[in-house]
Amino acid sequence: MTGPFAGAGLWFGGDYNPEQWGPDTWAEDDKLMRLAGVTAATVGVFSWSSLEPEEGTYTFGWLDQTLDRLHAGGVRVVLATPTASPPPWFSFAHPDALPVTAHGTRLWHGSRDTYCAAAPAYRQAALRITEQLASRYADHPALAMWHVHNEYGSLCYCDHAAAGFRRWLRSRYDDRLDALNTAWNTAFWSQGYTSWDQIVPPRATQYLPNPSQTLDFSRFWSDELMAAYLEQRDLLCQGTPGVPITTNFMLPNDYQNLDLWRWGSEVDVVAVDHYLNATGRPGRADLAFAADQIRSFNRGRPWLLMEQAPSAVHLYDQGIAPAKEPGQMRSDSLGYVARGSDSVMFFQWRTGRGGAELHHSAMVPHAGPDTRVFREVTELGADVRRLAEVAGSTVRARVAVLSDVNSWWAMESRGMPSSRMRYLPALREVHAALWAAGVTTDFAHPEADLTRYGVVFAPSLYLLSDAGAASLERYVAGGGHLVVGCFSGVADETHAIRLGGYPGGLLNLLGLRVEEFHPLTEDRVVRLTTGATGTLWSEDLQTRGAEVLAAYVGGPLDGRPAVTRNRHGAGFGWYLSTRLDRAGLAGLVEQVLAAAGVGPELPGAPTDVEAIRRHADDGRSWLFLFNHGDLTHLVPASGIDLLSGHQVDGELALPSAAVAVLREH
Amino acid sequence: MTGPFAGAGLWFGGDYNPEQWGPDTWAEDDKLMRLAGVTAATVGVFSWSSLEPEEGTYTFGWLDQTLDRLHAGGVRVVLATPTASPPPWFSFAHPDALPVTAHGTRLWHGSRDTYCAAAPAYRQAALRITEQLASRYADHPALAMWHVHNEYGSLCYCDHAAAGFRRWLRSRYDDRLDALNTAWNTAFWSQGYTSWDQIVPPRATQYLPNPSQTLDFSRFWSDELMAAYLEQRDLLCQGTPGVPITTNFMLPNDYQNLDLWRWGSEVDVVAVDHYLNATGRPGRADLAFAADQIRSFNRGRPWLLMEQAPSAVHLYDQGIAPAKEPGQMRSDSLGYVARGSDSVMFFQWRTGRGGAELHHSAMVPHAGPDTRVFREVTELGADVRRLAEVAGSTVRARVAVLSDVNSWWAMESRGMPSSRMRYLPALREVHAALWAAGVTTDFAHPEADLTRYGVVFAPSLYLLSDAGAASLERYVAGGGHLVVGCFSGVADETHAIRLGGYPGGLLNLLGLRVEEFHPLTEDRVVRLTTGATGTLWSEDLQTRGAEVLAAYVGGPLDGRPAVTRNRHGAGFGWYLSTRLDRAGLAGLVEQVLAAAGVGPELPGAPTDVEAIRRHADDGRSWLFLFNHGDLTHLVPASGIDLLSGHQVDGELALPSAAVAVLREH
Amino acid sequence: MTGPFAGAGLWFGGDYNPEQWGPDTWAEDDKLMRLAGVTAATVGVFSWSSLEPEEGTYTFGWLDQTLDRLHAGGVRVVLATPTASPPPWFSFAHPDALPVTAHGTRLWHGSRDTYCAAAPAYRQAALRITEQLASRYADHPALAMWHVHNEYGSLCYCDHAAAGFRRWLRSRYDDRLDALNTAWNTAFWSQGYTSWDQIVPPRATQYLPNPSQTLDFSRFWSDELMAAYLEQRDLLCQGTPGVPITTNFMLPNDYQNLDLWRWGSEVDVVAVDHYLNATGRPGRADLAFAADQIRSFNRGRPWLLMEQAPSAVHLYDQGIAPAKEPGQMRSDSLGYVARGSDSVMFFQWRTGRGGAELHHSAMVPHAGPDTRVFREVTELGADVRRLAEVAGSTVRARVAVLSDVNSWWAMESRGMPSSRMRYLPALREVHAALWAAGVTTDFAHPEADLTRYGVVFAPSLYLLSDAGAASLERYVAGGGHLVVGCFSGVADETHAIRLGGYPGGLLNLLGLRVEEFHPLTEDRVVRLTTGATGTLWSEDLQTRGAEVLAAYVGGPLDGRPAVTRNRHGAGFGWYLSTRLDRAGLAGLVEQVLAAAGVGPELPGAPTDVEAIRRHADDGRSWLFLFNHGDLTHLVPASGIDLLSGHQVDGELALPSAAVAVLREH
Repeated sequence: MTGPFAGAGLWFGGDYNPEQWGPDTWAEDDKLMRLAGVTAATVGVFSWSSLEPEEGTYTFGWLDQTLDRLHAGGVRVVLATPTASPPPWFSFAHPDALPVTAHGTRLWHGSRDTYCAAAPAYRQAALRITEQLASRYADHPALAMWHVHNEYGSLCYCDHAAAGFRRWLRSRYDDRLDALNTAWNTAFWSQGYTSWDQIVPPRATQYLPNPSQTLDFSRFWSDELMAAYLEQRDLLCQGTPGVPITTNFMLPNDYQNLDLWRWGSEVDVVAVDHYLNATGRPGRADLAFAADQIRSFNRGRPWLLMEQAPSAVHLYDQGIAPAKEPGQMRSDSLGYVARGSDSVMFFQWRTGRGGAELHHSAMVPHAGPDTRVFREVTELGADVRRLAEVAGSTVRARVAVLSDVNSWWAMESRGMPSSRMRYLPALREVHAALWAAGVTTDFAHPEADLTRYGVVFAPSLYLLSDAGAASLERYVAGGGHLVVGCFSGVADETHAIRLGGYPGGLLNLLGLRVEEFHPLTEDRVVRLTTGATGTLWSEDLQTRGAEVLAAYVGGPLDGRPAVTRNRHGAGFGWYLSTRLDRAGLAGLVEQVLAAAGVGPELPGAPTDVEAIRRHADDGRSWLFLFNHGDLTHLVPASGIDLLSGHQVDGELALPSAAVAVLREH
Repeated sequence: MTGPFAGAGLWFGGDYNPEQWGPDTWAEDDKLMRLAGVTAATVGVFSWSSLEPEEGTYTFGWLDQTLDRLHAGGVRVVLATPTASPPPWFSFAHPDALPVTAHGTRLWHGSRDTYCAAAPAYRQAALRITEQLASRYADHPALAMWHVHNEYGSLCYCDHAAAGFRRWLRSRYDDRLDALNTAWNTAFWSQGYTSWDQIVPPRATQYLPNPSQTLDFSRFWSDELMAAYLEQRDLLCQGTPGVPITTNFMLPNDYQNLDLWRWGSEVDVVAVDHYLNATGRPGRADLAFAADQIRSFNRGRPWLLMEQAPSAVHLYDQGIAPAKEPGQMRSDSLGYVARGSDSVMFFQWRTGRGGAELHHSAMVPHAGPDTRVFREVTELGADVRRLAEVAGSTVRARVAVLSDVNSWWAMESRGMPSSRMRYLPALREVHAALWAAGVTTDFAHPEADLTRYGVVFAPSLYLLSDAGAASLERYVAGGGHLVVGCFSGVADETHAIRLGGYPGGLLNLLGLRVEEFHPLTEDRVVRLTTGATGTLWSEDLQTRGAEVLAAYVGGPLDGRPAVTRNRHGAGFGWYLSTRLDRAGLAGLVEQVLAAAGVGPELPGAPTDVEAIRRHADDGRSWLFLFNHGDLTHLVPASGIDLLSGHQVDGELALPSAAVAVLREH
Repeated sequence: MTGPFAGAGLWFGGDYNPEQWGPDTWAEDDKLMRLAGVTAATVGVFSWSSLEPEEGTYTFGWLDQTLDRLHAGGVRVVLATPTASPPPWFSFAHPDALPVTAHGTRLWHGSRDTYCAAAPAYRQAALRITEQLASRYADHPALAMWHVHNEYGSLCYCDHAAAGFRRWLRSRYDDRLDALNTAWNTAFWSQGYTSWDQIVPPRATQYLPNPSQTLDFSRFWSDELMAAYLEQRDLLCQGTPGVPITTNFMLPNDYQNLDLWRWGSEVDVVAVDHYLNATGRPGRADLAFAADQIRSFNRGRPWLLMEQAPSAVHLYDQGIAPAKEPGQMRSDSLGYVARGSDSVMFFQWRTGRGGAELHHSAMVPHAGPDTRVFREVTELGADVRRLAEVAGSTVRARVAVLSDVNSWWAMESRGMPSSRMRYLPALREVHAALWAAGVTTDFAHPEADLTRYGVVFAPSLYLLSDAGAASLERYVAGGGHLVVGCFSGVADETHAIRLGGYPGGLLNLLGLRVEEFHPLTEDRVVRLTTGATGTLWSEDLQTRGAEVLAAYVGGPLDGRPAVTRNRHGAGFGWYLSTRLDRAGLAGLVEQVLAAAGVGPELPGAPTDVEAIRRHADDGRSWLFLFNHGDLTHLVPASGIDLLSGHQVDGELALPSAAVAVLREH
């Protein structure tokens, strides 16, 4: 096996910042890492001021020692460029490179990421330190991977950003202002531009901003950050051609500033920092949702879990960081592996004693190694070694959920029919229904080749390009089952509405026409003939060939179609015009899967048991089993449990909270 | 008949923006407008960048064609000046004319209304484009009315605004700083001004601002916007002396930046953009509340409904835009006519395909003419033609509710006894009680001649000028029934408290003295001897001659008067010291109306049926009937139903959701 | 007796601003003050623009007259420097002295406190007007006390503040940047400073700020304000060596910008402005909480209640100002006296008729003297005279609650384990339990000598200096009972975590080690073996010698210790690892008090009756009794009731809402 992970089993370790500690701690680190079975460490993230304390003055000594020490201990190094946090001397010398919010507030040094990624001074300084690292460590034997920057995503609306935006627009619109005026529909509200100089980012304005302008700014910014990434990547690639390069993605709950489908093709391996957004079963659904996305962004290949929390995770909507219960770190970590990660890595090795994240959990807590957390880390390290053989294998799905950040961005516009109708929850809801049904699921881009999938779901795919519409048409005509959710196919890629009835891009495929949206207030529910209920949204819909599977009962849409199916070519286009309750959605999912002949990963598995397989090219497979319930369950499975070493024949008794990984026959 | 509407029946149509479409669409527009019976179109709103794409370069071609086309189709044109949205070239050339918030945030181009109305460059540019329009279209036969700007109201706190504020203050206070210092009570908190230059708008400050300063700034800004309006109006008037001139008012729920009593006397006809703030019956009460205000601002004469939504309306407090149910557009539209509108007009003709309001409903929806909405538009057009004869007739009310934006502005000050005690809800509550009682109601200014009214309500008339107090005194002494709500007459027009007991301006008339306010927390209710309850507010009140109609029961005010009546001259001053529950308020309204001998518009009408009359000078009258209930109701009425053509003799069976308009005998 | 109050009984009066009124009102003021028994007036607060209307022009005439008038009426004067509100001319001349928020918004004149306390121009102007006052009124016989400024506390983040911050840091860190880098842990997130110039205040930044930087900025700002205070104090002291000097503290609910332990040693007497934060019993607990703090900041000596509200008090969290019920002003006023105040003073004498606080209640309301409020003021004046003999006596407590604003500041950092775990509620909760138990309680600084106390409570003493830890160690070793609340002793004084298990500073004393925090979401409760429940917080704790008093039942901490006690030297260290429900906390308090042999102020007093004693050095004592219940209670007490003149022998029947003050035998 080749590739980023270099056939070395699963990587185990975390972010390591020795510059925050001294030699005594380093000695303990060496000992404890060996004890825990650490095999990989991410080094250098945010270390800029420790590496270049003043412009052009470099202090690499501690980093030299760190790499030597780690290498001596058999720990491979993911070496980060430190560019996510310029040192104070930089901000002081270049105040114009500090970021500015849409409201014109200049943000100051004192945290991290206090730079505008479009500022020339920043970009130059970032390349200089990257070049230094590349040349110094190119041949270091510990160097296993480059990690560029950290968690790209911070926005800026300053004049550098404005200049970059204009450059990007000139390129996108072939230097034709009339094309931009058309795409942005600037005849509305007197916004016709007659010079590129007149264009600004979507800064604070009087009332509703132009939604095409905000959409293009989102695209621009993703590309501008990518340009900053690519500059570093290319420089590193030149210096160390054989060393794989990555940067770590995030999957925040409230926003997304990167087009991760595009970013995914620019890294050698997709790495992710994932922090659960909930405890208990919802947290576990979130884990699957994240892992399935990341694997898909990485085109199905093994990926890198770069950061997760060993224990307490901040739930930002609740302002609280609950500690993980005993065993949860193990179960979650193996959960990522089950869905294709070739690593179990954490932020961070050792809890900081000061600075902004001083209460962030770590592998070695404030209380030291004589703690539940460190003991569990050590046990987990052993488990990870036992699973070495799964490295390089992949997950295979026959169902996909379409996702496109352009729909997300467009749906965040102000003045939409309902501000309660948001993109991410729509995606989560469908994925969660499939997860609950035990079905292994990929994510896919609307324009991708979908032929490998038996069923494809398109929840609220509001913005759909012409190419996307054609792709879906091909998929269904070729025999696929496409399940389109409400508020899909409404806008084209400029965020202009497709006229003639919604969903403009899919009318033919679905055999229907939506005349008008009927969004629902918080206290409203619609009822269907199937007994299911819908919330948030409903639509006034007329079939034009489609079969009605369920109709509305009562209310202004009484008797109108709610769920439909249309035979189209060799396949079927399904349409769902509301957001079903959990049971209703589960029923629809079951119906579609049955129609398409697609089943769960492990037929007969109890509801509480999550089952997922990894497959090697040579035909071997591994079945991962997790019991999320409170009782022991009997699971129909066979093979050798790599964790316990036990042979399983036909049935495995899996206790509450237990994990098994069976090498199948 | 003469006047703005020129004896042409009721106008039917909407905002029309052909510059956002092309010739193919124009051809379809011509056809569909004819089909729908459109007779009026508002053209040119926000068209500045399409008319003057660069400074001094004009592109009137499309507008010439539009007016010619409309004229050929028999559609009269309300021609707007496009000054509510300066083009990008303007903002780029004059950054100092961009608006600035109270917090110092400069707002940028990218929406609409991104100008400071006090900026000289803006005012000059606005006059230049207005002059161009006036001279080009003065003699166009389609021109039926000028529409200046659009929805005046945007605030600014920049240095231009500051300079204007100082000019306005010098004029208001006769260039006497000591008069300002007295009016603003600047001895409090060390605010004595010794130079006009020291005065700024009420920008962000450390703690509570001076409430007299904020009040004067509100007055100034209404006047500054009016000055901008008058400049355009006078210029248009000069160029086309015979053409009526208007601008469209708004009635937002959260704020009011214009003194509409003053503005009402500066337009040839009051025009309004009205968007319902609720669905169902509350929405209908809002319609009556708005229409009665607008008619009153227009001194009772027929007015112009310039914008309403054909279907989905954004409920901003809920972040959602629910579609209207079948039939509602018709019922609502005729509801405005019933209350004096001589038009049924919409924003807008055709739903935009892009730009900020791309989901705003329109007469021709995204889905095209083969839709419920467009079919209802067409039917409504026919109904409107059937009602042509009511044009020019007026509504007659014997009850008035006093309203004064100065009370609103003053009550929005911080540091009031209760931030839950707001002006608009107090007005709505009383109007809704009268609406539910079937009583036709005007609004009136406190200083107006009120003799025509049998009963006058004054809900929370917190700020009362000396002239206003004298006016109310005259009204009651002359035989009127004045019902004063709690928290009235507290402050004079500088927002200084009238000392010696509340309500300082009305002590004699009411025969009582309020010693202290007892505002109620959200969980508190007060009980009255009548069985009614009060919320939000109560008062420690002593009668000085007034009769006690109800007293408080329990709590700190146990046994104290709550509702009183005082004989004063030939009339009565009633006082209500709390905010009654709905039934309690209905009971009090009934009692007052009975005492004054004032009845509902249609005695004997069922509760679900809204009845309202328009009267012609020649003695003819039309009875509008709306059934808002779920059942058919028998209504005691006679005449010919202009909508159905049926003769009604003594009793009309009005089905649920139906409308009838009887020409009475 | 000597000291600030000069043996003159209890002071009675309030803020008096004659400059807002004219001679007619002054004459009435003289009459009414005599009627009410006013003996003290605070004059000159916010009078700057009336005293120096233009730079260098002084208009002291009205103030001369005021002092003469008051003196003639036997009213002593607390003369304020007016520096809390610079006049408009100052702000206009020195825009750089206007304050700037952390987000960069410059605040404008128009309220009060619109200055940056670090701006040189402001400091100079403040000293000039202070010098004028000092020299003019040094020998005025009415002058009883100087009152510097008003309610210090407003923040600023401007460049003057930044320069001051750097100066303060250089001093704190002995000009050693490496010391600062260590203290701030700047190796985290690349914040290593290489020049003092690179340091800025914690202005708006991208993400979490450095918690050590924000902590030091809070300390700096408290000291910067103190420097401004000391400049004025020293100047006044020089001019009038015998006159006591104070400034009024506030105890807001949401923040605290001053280190009041440090400030308390720089005033001759601690003065406080206290506004109840609730009505009913919670308001009364707040009164005790405030009074006990203020007395403690004043090192136990009689203190000055400078401001309270005669009636309506703004409850800012509810946006409402409910009026006080009859009798409450009296009961509350005597409540402050009971806890050591030698004054009953109000803001303000006369309700303003205009300006920002025009609805703030006062001794003479808008409605004038013929009002309930003024009648109660007059009666209270007589009561205060009857209590003259208690002046100079003090309160004695055997229980203390530790408080340290450094813990508060540190706990307000972002990124803490739970944003729901806040400092002030933790303090309130423990104090309220002691108050409900009838135990007289002091507050104390952790580093103070605690030997006089039988029991000391340390709720959430998150930040604990080395000196503090040593002090607590000494206290327990010497025989004290220290009750440490959860989330204590976690950080050292730089806000670095003490490693090796929490609470790092107290491990030995408590005989335990906390491994990990388990903060609780809002819907979670933990149960204890005692039947008590905990919310907000729990901890994974191991005893190392301590006795387990209660353990967790169920959940992830099932069976782990929750409440412990450790014998240490001659005393005991108690530990409470969650936040108990009210009954549970009451039970623990009872247990600790019993163990320490400390009882309530009045054994046998009914629960509804609040009892508190003042003691004179000569052995006399006065027992204050307040019945907060709805029924008459029998209280075991003896003495002469100074208010009624009645003799009480063994038992007093105290009606609902009544107050008695017994001079005991």
